[in-house]
Amino acid sequence: MRARYNKNAEEILGNNKICINNPALNKEKWKEIFGNNNEIHIEIGMGKGNHIYKQAIQNSNINYIGIELNKSILVKALNKFEKYSKEDNCELNNLKVFSLDAKNLEECFEENEVDKIYLNFSDPWPKSKHVKRRLTYRDFLCIYENILKNTGLIEFKTDNRILFEFSIVEMNNFGMKFEKTFLDLHKTEEPNIMTEYEERFSEFGPIYKLVCRF
Amino acid sequence: MRARYNKNAEEILGNNKICINNPALNKEKWKEIFGNNNEIHIEIGMGKGNHIYKQAIQNSNINYIGIELNKSILVKALNKFEKYSKEDNCELNNLKVFSLDAKNLEECFEENEVDKIYLNFSDPWPKSKHVKRRLTYRDFLCIYENILKNTGLIEFKTDNRILFEFSIVEMNNFGMKFEKTFLDLHKTEEPNIMTEYEERFSEFGPIYKLVCRF
Repeated sequence: MRARYNKNAEEILGNNKICINNPALNKEKWKEIFGNNNEIHIEIGMGKGNHIYKQAIQNSNINYIGIELNKSILVKALNKFEKYSKEDNCELNNLKVFSLDAKNLEECFEENEVDKIYLNFSDPWPKSKHVKRRLTYRDFLCIYENILKNTGLIEFKTDNRILFEFSIVEMNNFGMKFEKTFLDLHKTEEPNIMTEYEERFSEFGPIYKLVCRF
Repeated sequence: MRARYNKNAEEILGNNKICINNPALNKEKWKEIFGNNNEIHIEIGMGKGNHIYKQAIQNSNINYIGIELNKSILVKALNKFEKYSKEDNCELNNLKVFSLDAKNLEECFEENEVDKIYLNFSDPWPKSKHVKRRLTYRDFLCIYENILKNTGLIEFKTDNRILFEFSIVEMNNFGMKFEKTFLDLHKTEEPNIMTEYEERFSEFGPIYKLVCRF
């Protein structure tokens, strides 16, 4: 599901108040940006933003930051936020987004600055030669460990069996502690906010989820 | 799938040369019993014995010990061994079985005496009040850690989603290191010897497998 390239994406993002254009300038200052001391939850690879939008409107006492590398997709998310927030009559003061490659997260967040990380339906990079690009590869776990509070959780969700098998072993070998796991999330009573992808593809197989911490 | 009670089980087991009637007497002496220095692999809850029988005939350089609490089921396994070994024209010198509750394993095995443990389709004990009876509960892991060599593996297989979810978290929290996992074993190329149960029920859902060590 590649999004069509939007040649005006850069300009659109530059003029949107939810989008942060130089996120590295906010390192260690995110609570100032939000104007409160609430927890900061980030979603790495937010895609079209359904999940983080719903989190934000359901939990006004938490600050959310959505991160998506692809700027054309980010524009789609922002358009959705505008449409939905009008319909829902809410201001979305607790939601920011920016475009970044996850390998550069430490440029934008200080140690322990993040309270929770969501990884939803990350690119599975199925070929073994691309293992290092998976967002649950050890190099990324090092970064998450650094920016996440000691008690902070990672919530990881995917429908890709190979990626989930890989991640369970990788995260265990990294020394992470598992809190709970679901091998068919939609068959449980666990509260769940679906992503666009999840709504579309969950009929074809189980959704896997792991909640864990360092 | 409860086996019918066999009132003659005790007597039948007492007269069978594959069955060990006082296993605690062999503690620290299993290599003498087998008459060689080969590795010792045990299956806890061997059921009707299909898996351990096939392991034994395929790997004559490994000693196998099957453990099953239910004596009526153990008789069924021994009958099967007799029939199959005649058909296969093999002597089964590398296979022993006995009846024991897994909580008493340390009565029968010295520290580090076991090279590998198989747990296949263990009773899932689905009710939360029975969690402590699951063979992957921490108290059992303590026992396995004790009798298993430092480098020894546990191979755990089940079709029960709730039991597998529980076991992943329990074994991770115990500090075990995961080697590999399969969330739909029969869809992979992984070599696999099926149990009777697995042959009968795998069409109804995925088979989960975890290979791990302490």
